[in-house]
Amino acid sequence: MSKQKKKVVIIGAGFGGLQVIKTLANQKEYEILVVDKKNHHLFQPLLYQVATAVLSPADIAIPTRSITTKYKNVKILFGDVSDINFQKKEIVFQNNTESYDYLIIATGAKTSYFGNAHWENKTLGLKNLRDALSIRRQILLSFEQAELIGDYEKSKSLMHYVIIGGGPTGVELAGSIAELSHNIIRKDFRNIDSGMTKVTLIEAGPRILNAFSESSSQFTKLKLESRGVEVLTNSPVLDITDSGVKLKDRFIESKTVIWAAGVEGSNLAKKLPLNKDKANKIIVDEYCRTLEYQDVFVIGDAANFSKGLTKPLPGVSPVAMQQGRYVGKFIQSQEKQKQMAPFQYFDKGNMATIGRTDAVAEFGIFKLKGILGWLGWLFVHLVYQVGFKNKVSTLLSWVWSYLTFRAGSRLIQEEVQDLSVRP
Amino acid sequence: MSKQKKKVVIIGAGFGGLQVIKTLANQKEYEILVVDKKNHHLFQPLLYQVATAVLSPADIAIPTRSITTKYKNVKILFGDVSDINFQKKEIVFQNNTESYDYLIIATGAKTSYFGNAHWENKTLGLKNLRDALSIRRQILLSFEQAELIGDYEKSKSLMHYVIIGGGPTGVELAGSIAELSHNIIRKDFRNIDSGMTKVTLIEAGPRILNAFSESSSQFTKLKLESRGVEVLTNSPVLDITDSGVKLKDRFIESKTVIWAAGVEGSNLAKKLPLNKDKANKIIVDEYCRTLEYQDVFVIGDAANFSKGLTKPLPGVSPVAMQQGRYVGKFIQSQEKQKQMAPFQYFDKGNMATIGRTDAVAEFGIFKLKGILGWLGWLFVHLVYQVGFKNKVSTLLSWVWSYLTFRAGSRLIQEEVQDLSVRP
Repeated sequence: MSKQKKKVVIIGAGFGGLQVIKTLANQKEYEILVVDKKNHHLFQPLLYQVATAVLSPADIAIPTRSITTKYKNVKILFGDVSDINFQKKEIVFQNNTESYDYLIIATGAKTSYFGNAHWENKTLGLKNLRDALSIRRQILLSFEQAELIGDYEKSKSLMHYVIIGGGPTGVELAGSIAELSHNIIRKDFRNIDSGMTKVTLIEAGPRILNAFSESSSQFTKLKLESRGVEVLTNSPVLDITDSGVKLKDRFIESKTVIWAAGVEGSNLAKKLPLNKDKANKIIVDEYCRTLEYQDVFVIGDAANFSKGLTKPLPGVSPVAMQQGRYVGKFIQSQEKQKQMAPFQYFDKGNMATIGRTDAVAEFGIFKLKGILGWLGWLFVHLVYQVGFKNKVSTLLSWVWSYLTFRAGSRLIQEEVQDLSVRP
Repeated sequence: MSKQKKKVVIIGAGFGGLQVIKTLANQKEYEILVVDKKNHHLFQPLLYQVATAVLSPADIAIPTRSITTKYKNVKILFGDVSDINFQKKEIVFQNNTESYDYLIIATGAKTSYFGNAHWENKTLGLKNLRDALSIRRQILLSFEQAELIGDYEKSKSLMHYVIIGGGPTGVELAGSIAELSHNIIRKDFRNIDSGMTKVTLIEAGPRILNAFSESSSQFTKLKLESRGVEVLTNSPVLDITDSGVKLKDRFIESKTVIWAAGVEGSNLAKKLPLNKDKANKIIVDEYCRTLEYQDVFVIGDAANFSKGLTKPLPGVSPVAMQQGRYVGKFIQSQEKQKQMAPFQYFDKGNMATIGRTDAVAEFGIFKLKGILGWLGWLFVHLVYQVGFKNKVSTLLSWVWSYLTFRAGSRLIQEEVQDLSVRP
């Protein structure tokens, strides 16, 4: 009895998509097509380290093709999916059409400006390698420009970095920029003292790291302050202009404003005629399926999974990965006419690094702070993340770069005439 | 008796400029200003490996600031020098003016199209990191496009790479592209066989590697051919169009044409009212000085040094480095009112790699071929080059990347919608 192969189409090879791939890899009943708009899988939790010149792109990204080389039933095509025809069960990308039996939307999220679209070109976001390299270039160039001007008073706004959003990304960026300017590159300049650089972290709510316990949050604030970061809470941003950031009681002059305050569903999600929440995340049922189509799944940051919960699952990689594995298994059960229990998230906790050898980590009732938190953070990032755990070369290269402050990461690839510091 | 410090201005921190810096570093009689248009010193001999996705930019480039951190008398400013006023002894860059007592022009060379300026946007050059990343992106994307088309006949011109110029760079690119497509990425695709990729190396003259002996040249041709590279000699290019390259007896359809056929003096050199040769290289005397000004030196690829020689010194890094050291010492002698002997180039020989474990190297009467040549090449590149020899971290990272075929180097940093294969 020959059986028709089922075609599983996955849009996006991030943490979620990759797990679907791995679950169904080399199983001859399935033909898998992955469509992505970038050629690499990105270890997003370390993106801030590329942005702050600690790591190089190649340290945190792997070409998706090289991950799936051994999976004979997996085909990858690069393209930006522009539409989905749910009736005909087809996706459309780059003038191509591909049909599916099962579709997994794993397109992630993009930076959200909460209705202030005009802030987009006044700030730098951090969602992909290109963003990270733009932040890096902006930071390094503003030091160069200050060195050229050679006068601290005249280059104050060049040497003041503002990060908006006190979540893990904001905290990590702030700590890392302070470390870069106050320590790593301090002896490199002759006209300016990069130790005088100001870093301000702005949070609209009453405390930073609000997904963490009060005590971790307080600890992080104190640690950041001792590292020379100014932490402003209860400070909603009123406006962002070419010269800086306007708060209720203050205007901060800055040429570099980084936006780490929020995300929303991808451009594709926005377009699709599906039930979505206010942030354009697609609402899914307890099996990670869309409410409309039982053969269409949404996982990771693209989804709003809140069935039976008081609030939606957070946009973190463990959620995406667990959902990816779940959906892979769900499809298998489906094919075997078996029933699957609803998806349940196993919360492994929260982590944020404040600087080298300093972090906060919470695993259920366990809370780690300082160097222990940092070691926990290191362990989880280096060892636990599936997809990288067998990549010894990437791992060693990462450790090496991280421990040696590899200067190569401070490269600006373009020449000066192609460059300008943002307005 | 207090003596006025002498101000030495160096334009360009390549192999030559760096040696001047090192020679005069931490000598309190000299105040050194380096002006460069990129923020890094580039190990140019390995640039082709970034272009062919073997290495990452951070493996072959070091921020110039991090090299000079310890040299207290060295200041670096980034900018594109737009003019020099030899009478007033001043250089002009980015609206700044800086005076000099001694000036060293070490601006290198740029790609030359021998009067066929319209070929520039039909081909890819290879002089800096940006060029290398463009070639890498173009090569990787053309495979992606072919995979998307899924038909070899229809994507023939995408899978045919043409390299014009049979010098070391052309040979290295051809060998490396053949290795990439025929071996490294071959199992990554499902619709196409990247092993069917064609690579053609075109040389106008009677043999490739014409600076080498006949036997090395012949050996290289045979080795390249055995690695699947088509080598065409006596084949001057008549025209380059959007669809490919026109030769006397043949038109090669190709979407990727790489130009490695020649260089000329920098844009700055072009502008200066100095004695120059046809390729805009500044003619210098036996002390590496311009013919016009005794306090202005030109070294490396920017210079034409042919005093007492049958032909000008070649544009290779040892020439630049030796001239850099010489000029540093010359300035010191000058200050001590001592006479220096004219510059003499100590020729260490020629090397070109054909592929992993295969190279030709000639040191005087010694000729190494194959694996021995490759080991010689490896030794010289890894150990001998001053400026990198103490950089253990760069070294290890390089060896590691090279030996493990680190996949991270196959990154395309942009997203698909930002990309298109060149015409």
